[in-house]
Amino acid sequence: MAGAIRALAVRGAPLIGVAGAFALAIELRQRPVGEALAPAYEVLRTTRPTAVNLIHALDRVRAAVEAVPAEEAADRAWAEAQAIRRQEEEASRLMAKHGAELLSGARTVLTHCNTGALAAPGRGTGLAAVVELHARHSLTMVLVTETRPLLQGARLTAYELAHAGIPYQLIVDSAAAGLIASGAVDAVVVGCDRVAANGDVANKVGTYGLALAANAAGVPFVVVGPTSTIDLHSLSGDEIVLEEREPEEVRWIMGSPVAPENTPCANPAFDVTPARLVSALVTERGVAEPVSPASVAGLLRA
Amino acid sequence: MAGAIRALAVRGAPLIGVAGAFALAIELRQRPVGEALAPAYEVLRTTRPTAVNLIHALDRVRAAVEAVPAEEAADRAWAEAQAIRRQEEEASRLMAKHGAELLSGARTVLTHCNTGALAAPGRGTGLAAVVELHARHSLTMVLVTETRPLLQGARLTAYELAHAGIPYQLIVDSAAAGLIASGAVDAVVVGCDRVAANGDVANKVGTYGLALAANAAGVPFVVVGPTSTIDLHSLSGDEIVLEEREPEEVRWIMGSPVAPENTPCANPAFDVTPARLVSALVTERGVAEPVSPASVAGLLRA
Repeated sequence: MAGAIRALAVRGAPLIGVAGAFALAIELRQRPVGEALAPAYEVLRTTRPTAVNLIHALDRVRAAVEAVPAEEAADRAWAEAQAIRRQEEEASRLMAKHGAELLSGARTVLTHCNTGALAAPGRGTGLAAVVELHARHSLTMVLVTETRPLLQGARLTAYELAHAGIPYQLIVDSAAAGLIASGAVDAVVVGCDRVAANGDVANKVGTYGLALAANAAGVPFVVVGPTSTIDLHSLSGDEIVLEEREPEEVRWIMGSPVAPENTPCANPAFDVTPARLVSALVTERGVAEPVSPASVAGLLRA
Repeated sequence: MAGAIRALAVRGAPLIGVAGAFALAIELRQRPVGEALAPAYEVLRTTRPTAVNLIHALDRVRAAVEAVPAEEAADRAWAEAQAIRRQEEEASRLMAKHGAELLSGARTVLTHCNTGALAAPGRGTGLAAVVELHARHSLTMVLVTETRPLLQGARLTAYELAHAGIPYQLIVDSAAAGLIASGAVDAVVVGCDRVAANGDVANKVGTYGLALAANAAGVPFVVVGPTSTIDLHSLSGDEIVLEEREPEEVRWIMGSPVAPENTPCANPAFDVTPARLVSALVTERGVAEPVSPASVAGLLRA
């Protein structure tokens, strides 16, 4: 599972949280808790540094196990992983509802990366709200950024929208800003990998540029994620570790080289969008709008 | 030649101007001017709608031909095409000089698309200034955006910089905004396909997003292009036709599909950056800074 998470075979912040929880539970079925817990926790925790859901889920399983006798550890871990999955599914349903209400009336929405059923339990996060908006007969078009380097928009979101029968158009990432400026977009909807205590959002690289374009055009920039994505230990985006991935992801696309051999690359997988550029943060517990330390803290108390 | 320009085998605003001028001159060697001029002019003019250099170059050859007896037309057209080429080469040399002076002290520059010797006579436009800055021992690193859909940054700029021995790193387009915000970039340098009378700049799609990111970070956003790129007939960017290209450019990369079959795509090849986001416009006749109707008009009077 650690390999699958590192290789992005399982990806999307809420989904790697659930997958990590089940991986830890499975490990505890195979080896005694005293032997298995610490190393498995550590291997899974360090697979990817930015999404905080993984750490939150692993912490929950560990805490559940530590509260019971050793012979009950495996069953307790499995029950906790199931609880996390069920809660994230319910969170998806509620985010879809709150998001669709917030976005009510939007006809064309632009989204980045993949935040649907392939990224989170249930119907996903941002894309769950988009699908719900379509079900409510408001939405007529989704603009999907391809999301280089790994093309989650082109490969996953396009697939999900086609499957759901929702009209969409694929664009290259850098076409988004001009299209937003042209008035073609009513709202930008993205997910999140970690939300700091002050409301700064770490998400898929490119998110910050979309937020700048949306703000310049007066278009709502809406972030959708479960409260498991909020990390009060990160006071601001400055404290969030942004994963740097392998240069091969930039140099190669679908098995073909796109640059001269050995071209040096920088490949940050995430960027940080300051809270002031985020119109609203939609969670299962409600919407923070505007996004501030107080409104983020309020979500966790809700 | 029209086919080569349409397919981008010849690309870069100044280079398609020169190529168009020579194509018209060659046509006039093969057929009588009365028969050849109008249709060849029209076929070439309509190959690509956004770069204005092509129209300017074709207009110059046509005007030169119309001023002489029919039997001198072919020689006169050829001489005019040569003059355009020589002037653009000299312009490249002067843009490199003015640009390097303006950027003096910049250590890391970010550039988009390809604006070097593969895009314009001489050493190019924006990249000519970057290469000159390196020759003057200021520059230590160039960040190169890959420039989807056609990857001119990854394929051409990376090649030119490697060839020139200038350190560079390739990034995906959407990584630029976060890197600029992080303080890693001292200046953003791009070319232009058409500059309107008010200083609005049409350039490769993605340019506008880079300008937003540079402005948000207080980083100079420098546009480099010969005065042949200025179009006083376009009063503002709103009047510039932005080419929409084939969806296959988005759906396929280097011969591999990146999205489900028949995925609908939007593929604008250009966007418009408002003059207020442009720190300086560098031309062979000097630098407009700030960029305004008056400073743009001043360049053409210089």
